[in-house]
Amino acid sequence: MSKYLTERLGTLEAYVPGEQPQDKKYVKLNTNECPFPPSPFASRLARQAAAGLNLYCDPECRTLTEVAADAFGVRADQMIFTNGSDEVLDFAFIAFCGEGAPAVFPDITYGFYPVFAKKDGVPYREIPLTADYRVRVSDYIGAKGTIFLANPNAPTGVALTRTEIEEIVKGNPDNVVVVDEAYVDFGGESALPLIDRYDNLLVTRTFSKSYSFAGGRLGIGFACPALISDLKKVKYSTNPYNVNSMTAAAGVGALLDKEYFESNIAAIRGNRASLTASLEALGFDVLPSSANFVFAKCSDISGEILYKKLKEKGVLVRYFDKERIRAFVRITVGTAEEIEALISAINEIKEGK
Amino acid sequence: MSKYLTERLGTLEAYVPGEQPQDKKYVKLNTNECPFPPSPFASRLARQAAAGLNLYCDPECRTLTEVAADAFGVRADQMIFTNGSDEVLDFAFIAFCGEGAPAVFPDITYGFYPVFAKKDGVPYREIPLTADYRVRVSDYIGAKGTIFLANPNAPTGVALTRTEIEEIVKGNPDNVVVVDEAYVDFGGESALPLIDRYDNLLVTRTFSKSYSFAGGRLGIGFACPALISDLKKVKYSTNPYNVNSMTAAAGVGALLDKEYFESNIAAIRGNRASLTASLEALGFDVLPSSANFVFAKCSDISGEILYKKLKEKGVLVRYFDKERIRAFVRITVGTAEEIEALISAINEIKEGK
Repeated sequence: MSKYLTERLGTLEAYVPGEQPQDKKYVKLNTNECPFPPSPFASRLARQAAAGLNLYCDPECRTLTEVAADAFGVRADQMIFTNGSDEVLDFAFIAFCGEGAPAVFPDITYGFYPVFAKKDGVPYREIPLTADYRVRVSDYIGAKGTIFLANPNAPTGVALTRTEIEEIVKGNPDNVVVVDEAYVDFGGESALPLIDRYDNLLVTRTFSKSYSFAGGRLGIGFACPALISDLKKVKYSTNPYNVNSMTAAAGVGALLDKEYFESNIAAIRGNRASLTASLEALGFDVLPSSANFVFAKCSDISGEILYKKLKEKGVLVRYFDKERIRAFVRITVGTAEEIEALISAINEIKEGK
Repeated sequence: MSKYLTERLGTLEAYVPGEQPQDKKYVKLNTNECPFPPSPFASRLARQAAAGLNLYCDPECRTLTEVAADAFGVRADQMIFTNGSDEVLDFAFIAFCGEGAPAVFPDITYGFYPVFAKKDGVPYREIPLTADYRVRVSDYIGAKGTIFLANPNAPTGVALTRTEIEEIVKGNPDNVVVVDEAYVDFGGESALPLIDRYDNLLVTRTFSKSYSFAGGRLGIGFACPALISDLKKVKYSTNPYNVNSMTAAAGVGALLDKEYFESNIAAIRGNRASLTASLEALGFDVLPSSANFVFAKCSDISGEILYKKLKEKGVLVRYFDKERIRAFVRITVGTAEEIEALISAINEIKEGK
């Protein structure tokens, strides 16, 4: 740290992304990536864009906007595109939180929310999940703050229904409710149809998971035109050309290749069911997941030990050194082969090998 | 604007990027893009990366860091990579400005600086350029703030020498001096060699101009390790995966293809000389440019009229509706053909056609 860093940032602890060790080849089930490559059509459009990089990308992402409006059944003025969905979340902290509107989110959720809040100088309040790791809707009615809800939640994988989300949106007419749907394509119920009826709802999506785009960086915010215009003001005051030409082109391809998308989603859901069954057969408690990961614990081994022993055996999962969830590990739903490798590694660990 | 937008942002005017009209094909000399495509090797590496987007990009950009360290003659811990250089500039406003350290910059410079300041809630002070549009070094000694200097300056194109920059860095030991070298490759003297000796100097670069990467989005910050670590803290609290895999790969290719880079720079410098001579022959005053654009005015036609008439004739240049510079237009140095089209359009305008 230099002596020039502002006081607020001096005490900030940055977000820690999932590790990417380079010492050997791992079965990588720690960062919720999709095990399948992006749609070949998406890659082809990205490749075509690579030759024209000398011209600025379109800050309005016009072609992508047109295709996405059709794919998601919304209007062009109900969307903003960002460099991954972390960026639209950050824009929402900047635009809609402040002294009068603290950020409000569960105590166990996406670990980036408190980091955004501290970085942006925004007060925040955490509401504990219930004992079985659920969001209790009544806790969020009249919450007197800008609400951030990952749905399905991370790292638990547990989802609220659209009706429950709607209750929360209705119950906070004076504040924005942000529903972070990074994982919704894997089985959650989207709040997207509600943006036409509520002027305080922002739904965010990422292409990182279900569209196999983690390395491409593309996020979307969906809301009524007034909220989108606020977020665009932040974008045009931060990084107008935030989505590069190759990623914008790839996004078009990914949205148009619906068949590929749906077949990947079906595969992940199938693998999630078999992963869950295998873990339960080994004595694990697995929270009911609507995401492309499961959150699981086993009474005879702590999350930390399991994480460490799996890493020794070449399998990466994610452990969070955080109150209430130290018993758990979060495991990305990979391919059938990756799941097999994980389960046999757990078997070996249980047998003391 | 929604009723949910915070007060500070309500009064903010966002940055306005150069127009990109879609109504017809223009000779586009308004956003300082490079008229040549990126290095074929850079495009090839980007294309290869397009198939692996399902995995997250490396937040540390390790391969790019290694190649850039060699290309720029610095160490790995003296660099941060960002989604264009606008992002590293924003990070600097967030990290190094605040109540005790207002931002300080010239009254005529990159129009994004005051926007960053307002968006980030940072006070700022503008110091007028001299009558001939130069930065007076003595104005910046003991400036009691975090200094932002575009060098060469935009939209004037006028550059300070490294010795002058060093005086300013030395003259502000209690504050960071940010030297924004977006255009330095076209003829400015870089402050990069000074980062080993001054712990308060941040030099920023972009690949948008000299590496033909405007649509790819890649920026770098160079500084001592402590400043870089501060900026990385902001990055890891904003968007850890800010540089996508395709762009990081393309950056490697662009840096390794030195011959292509140097031949493009030489072409732009040659074209700048001929553009300047042609404008002067037409009675224009042209500020001495070290960039890939010229800032020029003509006594018998205002900047606004010239801009509008050129646009009618299919040539886009940039006009700034701002005190002290309304007489000027900023013209990007394009290809010989583009310059010819511009000059003949100006001739027609002068002849009243």
